[in-house]
Formats: sequence, structure tokens, C-alpha cells
Amino acid sequence: MITWVEGAAGSPYDIDNLPYAVVSTDATPARLGARIGDRVLDLGAAARTLRPAWAPLLDVAALNPLMAAGPRTWDEVRSWVVELLTDPALRDRVTLLGVDEVTTSLPFEVADYVDYYASEHHATNVGRIFRPDGDALLPNWKHLPVGYHGRAGSIVVSGTAVHRPAGQRKAPADDAPTYGPSLRLDIEAELGFVVGRSLPLGERVGTAELADTVFGVTGVNDWSARDLQAWEYVPLGPNLAKSFATSVSAWVTPLAALAAARVDVPGQEVAVLPYLQESGPNGVPSGYDVDVEVELNGVVVARPPYRTMYWSPAQMLAHLTVNGASLRVGDFFASGTISGPEQDQRGSFLELSWGGREPFAVGEEQRTFLEDGDEVVLRYSAPGALGGRIGLGEVRGRILPTR
Amino acid sequence: MITWVEGAAGSPYDIDNLPYAVVSTDATPARLGARIGDRVLDLGAAARTLRPAWAPLLDVAALNPLMAAGPRTWDEVRSWVVELLTDPALRDRVTLLGVDEVTTSLPFEVADYVDYYASEHHATNVGRIFRPDGDALLPNWKHLPVGYHGRAGSIVVSGTAVHRPAGQRKAPADDAPTYGPSLRLDIEAELGFVVGRSLPLGERVGTAELADTVFGVTGVNDWSARDLQAWEYVPLGPNLAKSFATSVSAWVTPLAALAAARVDVPGQEVAVLPYLQESGPNGVPSGYDVDVEVELNGVVVARPPYRTMYWSPAQMLAHLTVNGASLRVGDFFASGTISGPEQDQRGSFLELSWGGREPFAVGEEQRTFLEDGDEVVLRYSAPGALGGRIGLGEVRGRILPTR
Repeated sequence: MITWVEGAAGSPYDIDNLPYAVVSTDATPARLGARIGDRVLDLGAAARTLRPAWAPLLDVAALNPLMAAGPRTWDEVRSWVVELLTDPALRDRVTLLGVDEVTTSLPFEVADYVDYYASEHHATNVGRIFRPDGDALLPNWKHLPVGYHGRAGSIVVSGTAVHRPAGQRKAPADDAPTYGPSLRLDIEAELGFVVGRSLPLGERVGTAELADTVFGVTGVNDWSARDLQAWEYVPLGPNLAKSFATSVSAWVTPLAALAAARVDVPGQEVAVLPYLQESGPNGVPSGYDVDVEVELNGVVVARPPYRTMYWSPAQMLAHLTVNGASLRVGDFFASGTISGPEQDQRGSFLELSWGGREPFAVGEEQRTFLEDGDEVVLRYSAPGALGGRIGLGEVRGRILPTR
Repeated sequence: MITWVEGAAGSPYDIDNLPYAVVSTDATPARLGARIGDRVLDLGAAARTLRPAWAPLLDVAALNPLMAAGPRTWDEVRSWVVELLTDPALRDRVTLLGVDEVTTSLPFEVADYVDYYASEHHATNVGRIFRPDGDALLPNWKHLPVGYHGRAGSIVVSGTAVHRPAGQRKAPADDAPTYGPSLRLDIEAELGFVVGRSLPLGERVGTAELADTVFGVTGVNDWSARDLQAWEYVPLGPNLAKSFATSVSAWVTPLAALAAARVDVPGQEVAVLPYLQESGPNGVPSGYDVDVEVELNGVVVARPPYRTMYWSPAQMLAHLTVNGASLRVGDFFASGTISGPEQDQRGSFLELSWGGREPFAVGEEQRTFLEDGDEVVLRYSAPGALGGRIGLGEVRGRILPTR
């Protein structure tokens, strides 16, 4: 199948990708669009004219109605989009917008947001930085995917500027805490999973149900104020250090588009309890071969590889509901910082600068944490079904001074 | 002002109280109601016939539209309800339902849920139980109200049965974690605060803005699986130990009804940073003289006094947004377990049984944690403006076996 859209074949947004976003222009209110090459198929308009039954799913300003329709409909809509973009007879029946002409907004209404801590390299680095004399990994880490609830209301779409958070910090040598703008503002490069299914309280989702439960993935930058975090986090975990903003990509890549990116997780040497067991094609849990680029002010400073993550998406999902927690369409869980084994594969400045003690090069500059005016862009890509690489949504954000 | 509703004058639901709920009957869909005595004023019907402009706020199945209308409208609606219930000329123009005839549902759509840890007695007891050789309070505790985000999607209305959660636990002596129904299922008797205001990212709410920001209060039972919690909670805080269910009262008491219950907090000996300073009428932060009764299977087992809390509601609110986190209408924060200085004032079974080591009497029985079939009722009351006591909503829940 070859798309009739000029310049799209062979690009990172070929017919094997087709991510969704909520798009608007001066002339058109927000509705769903699907990216193809440098263009956006107006799904709202296409539904109104060609498939009115789907207008309530597609001519709307969030992915939630489509997600709520369930995985069979996800497949049907995706097949229809392929048909629209490959059948030359249909090219005059649909509207394409330029990807640079549209404004994107938050692609889904977020229900609950859970952030995991699924990279062994990241958790080990953080443990070594903060507890140099103790065990790098805590005893529970290889038995369950450690996670916590973040603030759903401060999730913002890529491109939204982020005000530097203020709050309390206290270094061990200080007598008392002080208040002010965070001095150790950081990024966390993560991958996010959007849940398109609801489940009543008291039930559970198994590891085999990932594809029926997760609609798609996003890029995530879980901005983190390390000085606030160090002071506040015992015993109930991070709160204000994270709750000021979490950026997600405008584009949600359907899980179906990542089929060719499936890989085995690197190996879980500690046997897990049955509810966390996942038998992928090779008898081990499945991850994704997603590459991430972390760019600071135009310079790539790290390339975290998602394929090195310890816990799989299906395991994170199964853990989320094993206690009987309900699911809502729009629930969102993220992987936690992606860090690989190499120094230039670390997904946070905390790790890249080893706790701020070893500045790292950004072009001519030496940097530790974020400065006002900095712009961070996270770029994601993965193998696609057509043999090339597909582009996932980027996550862009500039730091503004504390208000 | 005396209400014309029979039996209401002098009751805990007199004209100085007037809590709101979402009510329905077989004949009427869900809409707002206000309680008076043993009756419920049908606010949806009253708005339709007497104040059509308010029907979009009152003839709806959640408090959110009324809350979003802002504090002036909260006052106007409350004054109107008083007028309806005190002017005998209006008694034939409104509909009263029996409080036992109506079904209540979750009174507001929950945006984000933050749970604090604001009782010094509770935090000290927990510290002593879990860290008998260390300092009972951690170093940050008197400098900031410690809190974390809970799962908004598993907040349920009073009366909803709660399935015992399952999950991982590992006692220090065990070689490896095991999976199964929680063996240490607990309650946490708390008071909850419903936010009726939205605020953009990057701004802050000050301690003087409580009454313009918080619409009302609810009772809260933050069910907790202590065995799951002990194993999972480092380093990111409680997750599955709490996320399976949190029960809130069906009735939301307007903050205005608690004016006569205002008290000084017991005294904060450690000076706090300016953003947490609150000068109540006596130069110290303000709490509320709310009494709580914890009833297990019909026996009162504890009477936690909210007036003994260390951190005030205004301080918890100011902390929530000091980093620039946004607010949404429907945000909800809870006090954390309310425990007083006395043994019979502890708001959790963990404390009442001192970590399960000292069973406590429940009638003829000795108990530690919750058993299947147990029913817990939390009852709340406070001084009202008319000199008596007003009843706040009760929080009722029965434990069902793990599904």
C-alpha cells in the first residue's frame, strides 16, 4: 500500500505510522487529525462527509470518545484512515492540512496519571547518587514496578512553556528550609501509555490485555525539581517536585503502529509473582525498541533507549489494577525516566551531571540543571512496519522564570 | 429564622447546616438536593420552577457547575435555600423528598486528589510503630504539610462496598514477597476539602483564600492496606495500598456552615515560611472543631477530634499550589488520618491496635485489622451557628472478600 500523499512515502510519517492529535486552525475548531508526511488528515471533516456514524468519535476535541469505543473500533478507524490515504479515488474527498498550520492541544482528557520507575539503569544511578554507601536498588525494586500517582491536572501538551516552580528546599547542612525558585530543575525523558478502557473497581487487567487496553503511546517529559524533591519526599513520595507540570506529545501513536518495534525486555533475573508474568513470543515480557533523543537548546545531550527498560508496559498495566483499582478511559501511565547503560543514554540531567557534581557539555557550554530560557525537545522514533523508522510525537518545552 | 420543615428545627440538619448531595429516586434522575431535618429539598425542581437561570447549576448530577460559578454564587444559592425553607409562603412551591427515599451518588466529579498527613499525633504514632528506634517525626514534617497524590478514579460515595485489595507483601523475615488478599486492611478517618475554583499553571493560592477556593467539606475514609504499603512505599510513597478505594460522604457541607466551628490550631512551635503563614482571628492558623466517631459493626471504637490537627486547611491549600500547580474545579484534598492525643482518639486501626500488636475491644471481640463483612461508619459533627451541633455527612463502607 502506497499513500497518495506527496512526500509521505518513506518519511517517518508514512502509512505505517498515522499518529493522532487534536488539531485546530483559525478556520476550524478542534477535532481529531491523523498525521501523514507533513500533512494532517482532517478526521473530523472526513467523518462528517464520509462516515457520519463516526463523527461523535472523530469530530471531537479529545481522543476519549474514540478510545472508549474499544479496540475493534480502533482497528476499524485505523484501516479506514489507511484506505483514505492510499486510494487515489478518495483524495478529492478528504481535507489535508499542513502540519505547521495546525495548532495542537492536549490530545486526551487525562483521568488518573501514574508514573513508574521502570528503568534499572535510572533507578541504579539515582540510588548511587543519593545513597552512595547503600544498595543502589531498594529491596522491592525487582519484585514490582514501583510507581506513584502524579497530578493529572498539570499535564500539558508539547509546546506549553513551563514556569520554574518555587518551593521549599533544605540541604543537609542548612539549619532550616528556605523558599525560592527551584535551583535544580530537571527533565525526565519517558514514554507514556494512554488507557482506552474502563474497568470497574475490584477487577484486574492481566498482562495479556495490553493491546486491548492501551490505545497508544506518547512522549513524556516529567519535569522534576530535585531540590524540592529531596526535602519533601519522605515518607509519602514526590509531590510538589513533580506536580507543577508534565509535558506530553501532541501526537498519540497507536499501539498498532509499534508492532514492528516489539522486542524482548533485557531479562528479569528475579522471578516475579504470577500476576506480573508475561510470556511474549520468546517467553519473556515485551518492550519496544523506541529511541529517544534529548535535545537542549538545539544540542542532542542524550539518547536514551527504551528497549533497555526492565519492566514491560504490560507488567506496569497489570500492576496498576492488581489491587482492584478501577480504570477510566484517559488513564495514563508513564515509564519513568528512560536511561540506558551508557553515560550518553541517561534521560535526566540529574544523571547526566551525576547529581550536579559533573557538568556535561552542551555545545560550548558546561551545564548541570535547567536555566531560565532553556528549551528541551524530546524526540522519539521506532522501527515501522514498512522497514523504515516511524516518528513518534516530540515533546517540547521552554523554561520561563518563576511567576 | 426558623424553618417550616417539620422536625428540622433543633436537629443536626437545621437551617444553619444545609449540606448538598446528588440525589435521585426511581421517578427522578440525579440532581442536587439540600438536606433539612430528615428531608431533602429538591434543588433541581426548585430551580426549574422558581429560578430557571440556576437550573444549569442545580438541576445537574454533580456539584461541579455550582462550584465553578464561584463563591458569590455559592452564597446566593445558600441564601436562596434558606429563604425557600423559612418562608412559609414558599412551602407549596418546593418539593421535599425523604432522606431515606433518595439514592445518593458521588457528589462531585473528582479532578485531582491529594492526601495530606496533617495530624501530629497520627504521624508520631506511625513513626513510633514503624521506626521505634528513630525520631518519630521526620525532619520535614513541621516545615511543610507532607502529602501525595491519590487515585481520583477510585473515590467512591459512602455506602459503596469495598472489595478487599490483593497485592504483594513481604515481611522483613520473608525470603520473597507473596501475593494475596491484604491481611492488614485498615481505615483512615479524615476530613476532605472540595475545591471549587480553577487556577492556571504558574499561579498560587494564598492562605487567606480558603473561603474563596474551597466550596465545602466531606467525610473521608482512606482505606489502606498496611501490608501492601510497607513493602511498596519506598522510595515513591504509597500506591496500590491506597488506590483500590477511598470513600467520601454523599453530603458536602458548605464551608459557610462551619463558620461557628472555627478554632485556632493547637500551636505550631516551628516557624513556617511566609507562604504557609496564616493569621486567623488570634494570629494563628484556623482549624475546625469537627468531632469524628469511628464505628465498627455498630460499636464506636474511636472519637478522633479534628481540632487537634497540626496543619490547617488553608495551609494545606497554599502548599498545594506554591510550586505553580494548577487547580481545577473538583480538586479534592484530605487531611490525612485524624488522631488526637488520647488512645481512644486514634483514627486508624494501625494506631488503635499499635501495629496489630495490641488488639482493641469492639464490644465482646478483640480486633486488629478489618475482616470481611465488617462495616465501618464514620460520623462527623461540629458546632453550628444556631448554638447546637450540625451533622456532616457520614461515610459508610462494608468490606467484601477479594474478587
